[in-house]
Amino acid sequence: MPIAFADRLNNVETSAIRELFKLLGKPGIISFAGGFPDSALFDVDGIRIAANAALTHEPGAALQYGATEGYQPLREEIARFMGNKGCTDLAPEQLIVTTGSQQALDLLGKTLISPGDKVIVEGPTFLATIQCFKLYGAELISAPVDGDGVQTDALERLIEEHHPKFVYLIPTFGNPSGALLPEERRRKVLAMAVKHQTLIVEDDPYGDLYFDAPPPPSLLALSASVPGSRELLVHCGSLSKVLSPGLRVGWMVGPAELLSKATMCKQFSDAHTSTFAQATAAHYLKSGRMQGTLERVRKVYAERARAMGEALRRELGAAVEFVQPAGGLFIWARLTGQTGLLTDGAELAKRAIENNVAFVPGAPFYASNPDLSTLRLSFATVGLDKIEEGIQRLGASLQQA
Amino acid sequence: MPIAFADRLNNVETSAIRELFKLLGKPGIISFAGGFPDSALFDVDGIRIAANAALTHEPGAALQYGATEGYQPLREEIARFMGNKGCTDLAPEQLIVTTGSQQALDLLGKTLISPGDKVIVEGPTFLATIQCFKLYGAELISAPVDGDGVQTDALERLIEEHHPKFVYLIPTFGNPSGALLPEERRRKVLAMAVKHQTLIVEDDPYGDLYFDAPPPPSLLALSASVPGSRELLVHCGSLSKVLSPGLRVGWMVGPAELLSKATMCKQFSDAHTSTFAQATAAHYLKSGRMQGTLERVRKVYAERARAMGEALRRELGAAVEFVQPAGGLFIWARLTGQTGLLTDGAELAKRAIENNVAFVPGAPFYASNPDLSTLRLSFATVGLDKIEEGIQRLGASLQQA
Repeated sequence: MPIAFADRLNNVETSAIRELFKLLGKPGIISFAGGFPDSALFDVDGIRIAANAALTHEPGAALQYGATEGYQPLREEIARFMGNKGCTDLAPEQLIVTTGSQQALDLLGKTLISPGDKVIVEGPTFLATIQCFKLYGAELISAPVDGDGVQTDALERLIEEHHPKFVYLIPTFGNPSGALLPEERRRKVLAMAVKHQTLIVEDDPYGDLYFDAPPPPSLLALSASVPGSRELLVHCGSLSKVLSPGLRVGWMVGPAELLSKATMCKQFSDAHTSTFAQATAAHYLKSGRMQGTLERVRKVYAERARAMGEALRRELGAAVEFVQPAGGLFIWARLTGQTGLLTDGAELAKRAIENNVAFVPGAPFYASNPDLSTLRLSFATVGLDKIEEGIQRLGASLQQA
Repeated sequence: MPIAFADRLNNVETSAIRELFKLLGKPGIISFAGGFPDSALFDVDGIRIAANAALTHEPGAALQYGATEGYQPLREEIARFMGNKGCTDLAPEQLIVTTGSQQALDLLGKTLISPGDKVIVEGPTFLATIQCFKLYGAELISAPVDGDGVQTDALERLIEEHHPKFVYLIPTFGNPSGALLPEERRRKVLAMAVKHQTLIVEDDPYGDLYFDAPPPPSLLALSASVPGSRELLVHCGSLSKVLSPGLRVGWMVGPAELLSKATMCKQFSDAHTSTFAQATAAHYLKSGRMQGTLERVRKVYAERARAMGEALRRELGAAVEFVQPAGGLFIWARLTGQTGLLTDGAELAKRAIENNVAFVPGAPFYASNPDLSTLRLSFATVGLDKIEEGIQRLGASLQQA
């Protein structure tokens, strides 16, 4: 029998990227295609100690069903962690724990989006956000991004034109753009939220991964000084990029009524996030090891980002343009077509795979009007030597007739 | 600003049960209201050994992002676990890992249900199933249940009348009915699946918790001998009731095309189930401790079920009727009204709370036409002495004017 699937599945296409990822198992390939942290940097000892502490001190709680809102000691630790980043007024009850920040996106979709509702995202934005919201029937509108993140004037015009259900932004070292929204633009975003009474979602999985100086305060931190904006702001955080994606521990801060509805939806999505993972994360945060872990990973990613930027300038020269990222996992580059070379990112990706180097072409990251000349290159999981070698191969792929 | 929530939220009501659960913190209360296993029975040492083995032998895999379908060694162990229960032909690729079996329900809703689609469930059925499917816009139809589970003749008439998207059953020690569907009815269900080309979902979190003899083979095991039925069958399993709910490890077996769509939906729901929890579960299953754990918990729950049954007969006599369960966590009872006593389960629940004993009235477990005289009593988490005392209090509550 052919199964009759739900209509909502017609809203998403099988990703072109998935086909690419099937090729990544090829031996000898250097991959800049991933979107994940380097597992060699995981604080395995610290996580082991935390997991054992959870099983020793609270085996019942760590292994039993738990509150849908999240394990209370973890909510307290997350509030403290956020407090150290400038959100000093956050109570544990103002956040819920989610199964990775991907689930926060899913709960936003489930809670807020009726089919046909409009949502503004950045162009480009996180691929799984596009697909997640589309499954709930959202019509996505892309706000243009430059090297400083979303262009606030254009964003405001789109809000005025479309009255979106909400605006979804990754203001800090966004995936894929790597861009950092300056404080001035952040304040403009909060001001327009209040002016137009528009809900803003700040997705912030990368903010802790800065290289030299900390980024400007998050929208959440800034909202304390913009009257009326906190009640129009959702903030999603995650331990995935800084500690371990395998724990699947994220969180969502938001207006009380929204959190209440999201909690109800979460109850019927997965009941609660693994209490074992939550108790482990709580003990880890409590142990005080996070600061050291962050300093260590920032240093490694900073070196790799620098090496990749230098190699790109050396090997590809004027054929690419990009803003050197100040944090995160990605360099977002555009093929300029200078000296008559290729400008199609997807075509370059195919050639590159043949030359044993992989990256993700940028087009799928756009909800509409893709810039076909873009590329996303992750430096996070590749050692310095291999970055050199991989970018050389990329340069050779571009030069190839 | 009042947030405009999605239309689908209008399909679910805030649960009356939730109000009841708020009262359970009252000191001195004896609670038969829970739906969870006894945390005192968790094999904490075994889980600790498994978690440490995962972090020692495969720290990268256990802490990194993983495949949405599930951690391959866990899929292999689950296939073996299912093989030991009579599903000898199950390949690891024929199942996906879910974040508890609650997520399997969510993925079925997301993948299959368009607003207005009909789904047949048992009356009564699992409360979170009702709410989960309603959030996707399902119209639920209740098939009547007796002491032997769903009445197959009535079920077939409902299938003919409503042409449902699928039929959802908990054939083995169901929540809340505790009923066990005999093999003959199981074969009838599979035959009608083939005859009417109707998808059947078998939710089986309790099948391992039998008291004396094992239950009849699952629909999944039986489907091997009913030509054409396997392609119309989804089976949901879980470690929550037998090992630990806190791991949030469940699984779903189903037709390849359905698993493929469910995997896509899961990618945008939570990316994947915690690899840390999955690797821990895989090592636990591999360790061979599960058999001993199952024997231990079966023995304890069997004693408690027997004690509760005896106490009910002694203390409430002809005022209640119930089928003594052969497994699971629940006794499902009906107030007969004999000797002129109360027949309203919700009213009895209120009185009982005042007398420091709690249970869940049965009405909310019906998607339609509730039997208001029903009660769900869980014996799983209460010691023998407290079962006696609690049922005495329940009897006194019923006698109360």
